[in-house]
Amino acid sequence: MTPTTPDLNAMVHISETALSDIVCRALARLGLSDAHVQAIARVIVAGQRDACQSHGVYRLLSCADAVRAGKVQRTVEPTVNAGGGPIVQVDAGFGFSPLAFERGLPSLVEATRRHGLGALVVRRCFHFSALWPEIEAIAAHGLAALALTPSHAWVAPAGGHQPLLGTNPIAFGWPRPGPYPYVFDFATSAIARGDLELHRRAGTPLPEGSGVNAQGQLSTDPVAVARGAMLAFGGHKGSALSTMVELMAGALIGDWTSRESQAFDEGAGVTPAHGELILAFDPAAFCGGDLEAQAARSEALLGAITAQGARLPSERRYAARERSAAHGIAVPAPLHAEILRLIA
Amino acid sequence: MTPTTPDLNAMVHISETALSDIVCRALARLGLSDAHVQAIARVIVAGQRDACQSHGVYRLLSCADAVRAGKVQRTVEPTVNAGGGPIVQVDAGFGFSPLAFERGLPSLVEATRRHGLGALVVRRCFHFSALWPEIEAIAAHGLAALALTPSHAWVAPAGGHQPLLGTNPIAFGWPRPGPYPYVFDFATSAIARGDLELHRRAGTPLPEGSGVNAQGQLSTDPVAVARGAMLAFGGHKGSALSTMVELMAGALIGDWTSRESQAFDEGAGVTPAHGELILAFDPAAFCGGDLEAQAARSEALLGAITAQGARLPSERRYAARERSAAHGIAVPAPLHAEILRLIA
Repeated sequence: MTPTTPDLNAMVHISETALSDIVCRALARLGLSDAHVQAIARVIVAGQRDACQSHGVYRLLSCADAVRAGKVQRTVEPTVNAGGGPIVQVDAGFGFSPLAFERGLPSLVEATRRHGLGALVVRRCFHFSALWPEIEAIAAHGLAALALTPSHAWVAPAGGHQPLLGTNPIAFGWPRPGPYPYVFDFATSAIARGDLELHRRAGTPLPEGSGVNAQGQLSTDPVAVARGAMLAFGGHKGSALSTMVELMAGALIGDWTSRESQAFDEGAGVTPAHGELILAFDPAAFCGGDLEAQAARSEALLGAITAQGARLPSERRYAARERSAAHGIAVPAPLHAEILRLIA
Repeated sequence: MTPTTPDLNAMVHISETALSDIVCRALARLGLSDAHVQAIARVIVAGQRDACQSHGVYRLLSCADAVRAGKVQRTVEPTVNAGGGPIVQVDAGFGFSPLAFERGLPSLVEATRRHGLGALVVRRCFHFSALWPEIEAIAAHGLAALALTPSHAWVAPAGGHQPLLGTNPIAFGWPRPGPYPYVFDFATSAIARGDLELHRRAGTPLPEGSGVNAQGQLSTDPVAVARGAMLAFGGHKGSALSTMVELMAGALIGDWTSRESQAFDEGAGVTPAHGELILAFDPAAFCGGDLEAQAARSEALLGAITAQGARLPSERRYAARERSAAHGIAVPAPLHAEILRLIA
């Protein structure tokens, strides 16, 4: 523990190796195979490293809950079906998603290089991770990527008042010179589901436009919205995008919509089970041959964003990553104590 | 002219054939080749038929302005490069876009059926049309589609105040039983550029959050926003999506960003010149074999939207299309008079 400033007093700083060791031991206790343990630990540690509290070691608790509910296959080996065409299909067999992604990634990269564009379809996985680790892993191969997944039916379509759509994240990545690609990863709901829970526990009002009560009236009361429905960001446009996620990462790929995932959950309240669609694009295949001009053009665009004082989507995450490399990964002290209890 | 109710008094109702004839004659007078005339007329008449006033016969005036500015190639034949892979490339040669799309469509459909997914890259086109006619044309082949194009640099990135991004539309389509696919097509700006112009002419305030003045302060004054910058819909999320459009339908495909398109315009104020990226997906290739289950799932989702009283994105357009089929296409009387003058 490194007490420096008052707001850091509540943080424990720990090396990536040490944190990874704790996370792996906690996951192994859940009866997960070593392959699953390693893949899950990578995304959990990456989340904490980037100061994404909602997708960091906190998710160990979600994993434990999901395993206890009894439907997660803890040792299943994902099967990869890459037939030489641009579509790679992975059956996760109701295991957690990170291993399924890792197993499919080499085939996705190969297919995308061969055909110029590729798709990774992951079916039947329990999903708790952010999408940006996957987007970054693809961008590290010099490829652009777009990823979509449903979740649980918590969001009403624009003009409606009953939960139907998921928080349905959309993530995108574009490779850049240096270690940090352009990456965004956001829920198509106005706020994250986790934020609703935080407001409910704290008894604080939600931002305007976050949701409706069971009567379909706009409400900032987190309890009323939890009984009613969340809303999409950006009105009818966000709602349309969220519907696209259900159609593309649900119906298109032959896997569940958010409503079906929630039905399968049977009220257990664990992490959703569904599929994922990831598209990848080889810049060399699309640009007509001049990769230098392509990079100059995209760098000019992104440079013009930061030059006017605006932030790129993942800047805060990347800054946290640099702090973690310099000072160790910051973990809130109560959470640190809690994960130590998991391996006591 | 069919005067029925007061608000219809200002409308002329005209058959699709008769309107198409007027539009074609007006376009031919601009010196466009017959192939361009026919392709442009199809999208203009479709826009008016669907009561999209901003993309209907009003666009004849945009076409005329663009031709007069002297950069549009009026008789160029697009060249299609389909090498058997999933990416089809069309060079529009600085002609208008509709013919380039029509020329590329058969190859896109073939590539998508063969590979499961396909991409149509259109480069160097003058673009004035909505994207939904293209999305609907692809959906008519039973394929899902996603289309992106930049425009002119009118929109500031979230957190910035200088125009950089285009209004950058995103359009998506999903085939459904019957004639009407699920289709959305919206600008990633908070309001359309045409709406800003309408408010400026009428002297009416813009909706809150539409733009900033030249000092970067939020403003509802259309004159101040025209001198400052428009904003993206949905805050940083819409801004990120708009940036994705610049990267994917600009840098990726080796064509101009909105800023470059605007520089090429040299202040003439005509329709943007840039590229377009369209992705197409064969539901049969993605769903793991059970097309009936796939359609049942997507129809259940869309049915659950309308069952709670919410509207699907293109419902108003489709309703207008049915009215047009029954009663003829409605054209505002002053506009009707104006287009008749074009062919007098």
